[in-house]
Amino acid sequence: MPQDSADPLGPLELLGEHGCFAGRQRFYRHASAAIGLPMRFSVFIPAQAEACRVPVLFCLAGLTCTEETFMVKANAQRYAAEHGLMLVAPDTSPRGTGIEGEDDSWDFGTGAGFYLDAVREPWSRAYRMETYICDELLRIATTTLPGDASRVGICGHSMGGHGALVLAQRHPGLFRSVSAFAPIAAPSLCPWGRKAFGAYLGPDAQDWADHDASRLMERSQRPFPDGILVDQGLDDGFLAEQLYPEAFEAACARAGQPLTLRRHPGYDHGYYFITTFIRDHIVFHAERLRA
Amino acid sequence: MPQDSADPLGPLELLGEHGCFAGRQRFYRHASAAIGLPMRFSVFIPAQAEACRVPVLFCLAGLTCTEETFMVKANAQRYAAEHGLMLVAPDTSPRGTGIEGEDDSWDFGTGAGFYLDAVREPWSRAYRMETYICDELLRIATTTLPGDASRVGICGHSMGGHGALVLAQRHPGLFRSVSAFAPIAAPSLCPWGRKAFGAYLGPDAQDWADHDASRLMERSQRPFPDGILVDQGLDDGFLAEQLYPEAFEAACARAGQPLTLRRHPGYDHGYYFITTFIRDHIVFHAERLRA
Repeated sequence: MPQDSADPLGPLELLGEHGCFAGRQRFYRHASAAIGLPMRFSVFIPAQAEACRVPVLFCLAGLTCTEETFMVKANAQRYAAEHGLMLVAPDTSPRGTGIEGEDDSWDFGTGAGFYLDAVREPWSRAYRMETYICDELLRIATTTLPGDASRVGICGHSMGGHGALVLAQRHPGLFRSVSAFAPIAAPSLCPWGRKAFGAYLGPDAQDWADHDASRLMERSQRPFPDGILVDQGLDDGFLAEQLYPEAFEAACARAGQPLTLRRHPGYDHGYYFITTFIRDHIVFHAERLRA
Repeated sequence: MPQDSADPLGPLELLGEHGCFAGRQRFYRHASAAIGLPMRFSVFIPAQAEACRVPVLFCLAGLTCTEETFMVKANAQRYAAEHGLMLVAPDTSPRGTGIEGEDDSWDFGTGAGFYLDAVREPWSRAYRMETYICDELLRIATTTLPGDASRVGICGHSMGGHGALVLAQRHPGLFRSVSAFAPIAAPSLCPWGRKAFGAYLGPDAQDWADHDASRLMERSQRPFPDGILVDQGLDDGFLAEQLYPEAFEAACARAGQPLTLRRHPGYDHGYYFITTFIRDHIVFHAERLRA
């Protein structure tokens, strides 16, 4: 599996592999057709995958993170192992594109791909994270790797929470379950989102509606009848300016979308918050991805 | 608590605090009398500590790690919260001592204090990790912080496993329970240990016996009648050259010391191994630190 050059998706280079909860934690690099550059991702393969294809949960990390962050810090593997879920964590952007300014900010460019396909030059040359995840990486996960394409969920944190809520709505045929930790829930309203969308999608905020979880939900009708789970810490320093869970909550109410939005006093934006509640998310997805 | 200048141990500066499993994950800096420099440590305080003093588990990390590593990667907090254990993770050495050569190697000097008091110049000027942990930090943990001095355990990984097995034997009155992950179990026999002991303790290997877990155990009689727990991955790349669990196993047999040494096929030296088995260690200590 590490080097299968006959694979039409191209070979996966195994960068690292570790035993973990009776499964395997792996790190891969591959030449991405969608991005046009090498990309890295990580995967946790539970022991259950030795017998059959298993449900897959995509795990999207936040600003500045890499394909390692979620796997190192969230401790999702323990519960993924219990429930037989495969976890896939992509990187958070293309890297080394050579586009001028890609490394100028921590909240834009490298480490901040926002899980969309940029349409504006120069970013459109490489920043195609939506196609990368929903087409290329999903196919790798469910062909080369032992994921079941009919049972795929998506979750994410912060920018990755935005990614999960948006990609799930834009690709309802691909993702059957969705949850988020402290998502950027209305990026059109917040500095992080406006900066990224302005450069990746253009200055007209009308063009952002298809990439804004709350604006997408406003136009929907109960897209996930089995519910959406969102956890938000109330000591999160980004809550007031950047996250707007209340906008997503209002949009869900309008759309008739069942939403469990849990507000947790005493928890901030980081992985100590995520690890505290990750079990509930794994169980949430496992229940919705059964058979 | 963050700034209590009336404390005879000196003030603790709170560098960070995060909600975690209904408890608090904190990072502190303080002026260490034992080291003569500022030192950092981290602590997980379970919610149970609001009502009473709680048992304490010292968690010693390996080469190159800091006071953050164990708290970020091991995911011990979930089980510490369940069992009401406070976790304390010191840094792995003094930092910024100005001693020539302290940053020349990854396995010696900075990040590699080996949890002992150096007796050789120039290291003896600052490298007094045993006194720091067993005297200063333990007092902080059980006076300023809500640890119960009569219920203290110690565990560690790799160099920290060496530290746990040695400090527990050298201070049986302080530590009631001891466990380790992939410990450097016979440092007199391995390159890491010989390099560190030679510089910190001097070139005569006779002088190392009091700091070598296996040699200490050889001279003992059942020092921990409630047993010692050691986990070792069999895919650990350091196993053959650096760790020598079989030497510790033989010494325990000679000493009549009950030892549970578990050898795990498929697991390596890293934190994916540790997180897989950390629950068993927390339960092991919690059972021995009850009442």
